[in-house]
Amino acid sequence: MTNKPGLHLAHMREAAPLVQNITNFVAMNVMANVLLAIGASPAMVHARAEAAEFAGIAQALSVNIGTADPEWGAAMMEAAQAMGAQGKPWVLDPVAVGATAFRRDLGARLLDSAPTVIRGNASEILALAGSDAAGRGVDADDPVSAAEAAARHLAQRSGAVVAVTGPVDFVTDGEQAARIANGHAMMPRVTALGCSLTGVVAAFCVTASPFDATVAALAAFGVAGEQAALGARGPGSFAVALIDALHGLTPEMLDRQARVAPA
Amino acid sequence: MTNKPGLHLAHMREAAPLVQNITNFVAMNVMANVLLAIGASPAMVHARAEAAEFAGIAQALSVNIGTADPEWGAAMMEAAQAMGAQGKPWVLDPVAVGATAFRRDLGARLLDSAPTVIRGNASEILALAGSDAAGRGVDADDPVSAAEAAARHLAQRSGAVVAVTGPVDFVTDGEQAARIANGHAMMPRVTALGCSLTGVVAAFCVTASPFDATVAALAAFGVAGEQAALGARGPGSFAVALIDALHGLTPEMLDRQARVAPA
Amino acid sequence: MTNKPGLHLAHMREAAPLVQNITNFVAMNVMANVLLAIGASPAMVHARAEAAEFAGIAQALSVNIGTADPEWGAAMMEAAQAMGAQGKPWVLDPVAVGATAFRRDLGARLLDSAPTVIRGNASEILALAGSDAAGRGVDADDPVSAAEAAARHLAQRSGAVVAVTGPVDFVTDGEQAARIANGHAMMPRVTALGCSLTGVVAAFCVTASPFDATVAALAAFGVAGEQAALGARGPGSFAVALIDALHGLTPEMLDRQARVAPA
Repeated sequence: MTNKPGLHLAHMREAAPLVQNITNFVAMNVMANVLLAIGASPAMVHARAEAAEFAGIAQALSVNIGTADPEWGAAMMEAAQAMGAQGKPWVLDPVAVGATAFRRDLGARLLDSAPTVIRGNASEILALAGSDAAGRGVDADDPVSAAEAAARHLAQRSGAVVAVTGPVDFVTDGEQAARIANGHAMMPRVTALGCSLTGVVAAFCVTASPFDATVAALAAFGVAGEQAALGARGPGSFAVALIDALHGLTPEMLDRQARVAPA
Repeated sequence: MTNKPGLHLAHMREAAPLVQNITNFVAMNVMANVLLAIGASPAMVHARAEAAEFAGIAQALSVNIGTADPEWGAAMMEAAQAMGAQGKPWVLDPVAVGATAFRRDLGARLLDSAPTVIRGNASEILALAGSDAAGRGVDADDPVSAAEAAARHLAQRSGAVVAVTGPVDFVTDGEQAARIANGHAMMPRVTALGCSLTGVVAAFCVTASPFDATVAALAAFGVAGEQAALGARGPGSFAVALIDALHGLTPEMLDRQARVAPA
Repeated sequence: MTNKPGLHLAHMREAAPLVQNITNFVAMNVMANVLLAIGASPAMVHARAEAAEFAGIAQALSVNIGTADPEWGAAMMEAAQAMGAQGKPWVLDPVAVGATAFRRDLGARLLDSAPTVIRGNASEILALAGSDAAGRGVDADDPVSAAEAAARHLAQRSGAVVAVTGPVDFVTDGEQAARIANGHAMMPRVTALGCSLTGVVAAFCVTASPFDATVAALAAFGVAGEQAALGARGPGSFAVALIDALHGLTPEMLDRQARVAPA
């Protein structure tokens, strides 16, 4: 494991990549602020009339099905395919993909469009991989470890790096794998932080290989979460402190505090 | 008045109910954070392609017409009817229902779909009840007391519990009624807190009768507001502190600080 | 230069104008909170089924194309024309107008509908004026000074007051012009603050002439930003403190700290 998350953070910040996000309504504001805080340049561009055209100027794309509808789904497909055609990275966030027929169908079609990275909780990765996991809304009831085999299989089948996030994250490209033991129990008590992390993964993919980028992004987010928890009095002040911590995170802090191990 | 709001808070938290919210774009993020903070499990699922199907797994539903359009209105109707058919609670938030013909029509159709609870400010309850109230945007210009008779009438006609929120809240099922004298003047200076409260009412309805649930939810929200105001320097820090306070609220604090009286 | 921003702030607050906003999904919540904090009454009403009707009761309108689509574009046009027909002010925020064909077309059509004020960053004003500026997403890469000539030309051609915001803002009606040297470097690190400022300009236009209103609104926002920066530890706590500062801003503070000069 030669991953140097601090180096990847520094490279990402130097590039300040333009990241297009087709995300859900709950996440849009916090995701844009997370991306600005860590040093990327977010653009929330999802209308079908312009999503694929905008993909021509974006350097990475994140696609999140949290509040999609058929029209948005079409824009997601078109933008994802535009990124693929240009050899640019895009990251799939299959929110609650097991919950409804519409989500299962949209998730399957996006999976067929060759995402660079897939990030979800254990339930979502199990559902996307075709395992019969409990798909109760957007909560992760499955521990990450129960989804590791499904993640490896999904990575091999799709060619994507697959990240299962939870108390300890698991990342695999189907061959190598890593666990990231950063983060804080307050993180799932704030809405849309997982969604926001997906955008961070997309940003890191502009200047690093998908596997290294994903590991570094997860470590950076988790270390910032630990920092944020120090002075937080609850999920409200935690959310504010997380933005401050992402802004203040240095490559040195990240390398010192990252707990990344091969899996 | 035998209402024990602390007990209802404890029961709701134990159930951690999955609450589906078809709400407005302004409220989505803060409403999800409010529901997480108080201990429920929110899901913002509104697309017509899946709203009624998702209602099959949700334990309660809130419907808010703040930024609806005809397509969303159809999804609201379908989800509300699905909840009704399954005997599960749903709560109507008729934002600015008197302001436009579209809202009046949608509000009337949702009212005909038998909501379990209706929560609005005085203007909204007066407008929904058919009184000629000033419908200036989403602000409450009418004092709560002026809407009490309309609320009783609306409750009797619709079979719903009706809550009129303001400086002192009024709740009635058409027979019994209560006033809740909690809250803080900063609350209407933060957008979407009333919308968020509607989701909290829906969560409490999963484990308590509609009248008791509504009274307890309003008391809990108001007590948290009082707590939040202690250290706030303005509406920005107040909003953050409110999320912390909802998270930190205990049944004992709630029972001690709730100011509920029969009306 | 006889501009008295404090006086205009006091007049706006006394009127507490109902400002309709057809804005993007990222900005809706923070924009509503900004408008409440400074003393206006925001309403986020954009559905085509009611946008023009609601314009009949609103006192000012802001239109922001940040996440528009063709249906929203139609609602924007109808609401803007309704405001114009009633002689009420409306403000255009041409977010990333140079980025896609859809935005260029919608921006041009809105420009033809006679906005009272146009507020953008240098890239956006250059693009709207027909200059060939870099239209990379929503970031302002062009310094304000490079857009001054385009702003004067755009003001003369359209009849609108044009505001170019950046480190030092520039405002012109095509004849007179002013520079406002307030604000803080943290402001562009929080998403949707420029969008929110556009709503503040709309609010000030209800009780002051467009040029004076725009200058006063920009000064008020910038002074609040300076105040917010005093205790902020990063963009998260800055955003919270900005809402507090807008709420706490007094006319006296504004007059004392405003740095407005003729240009």
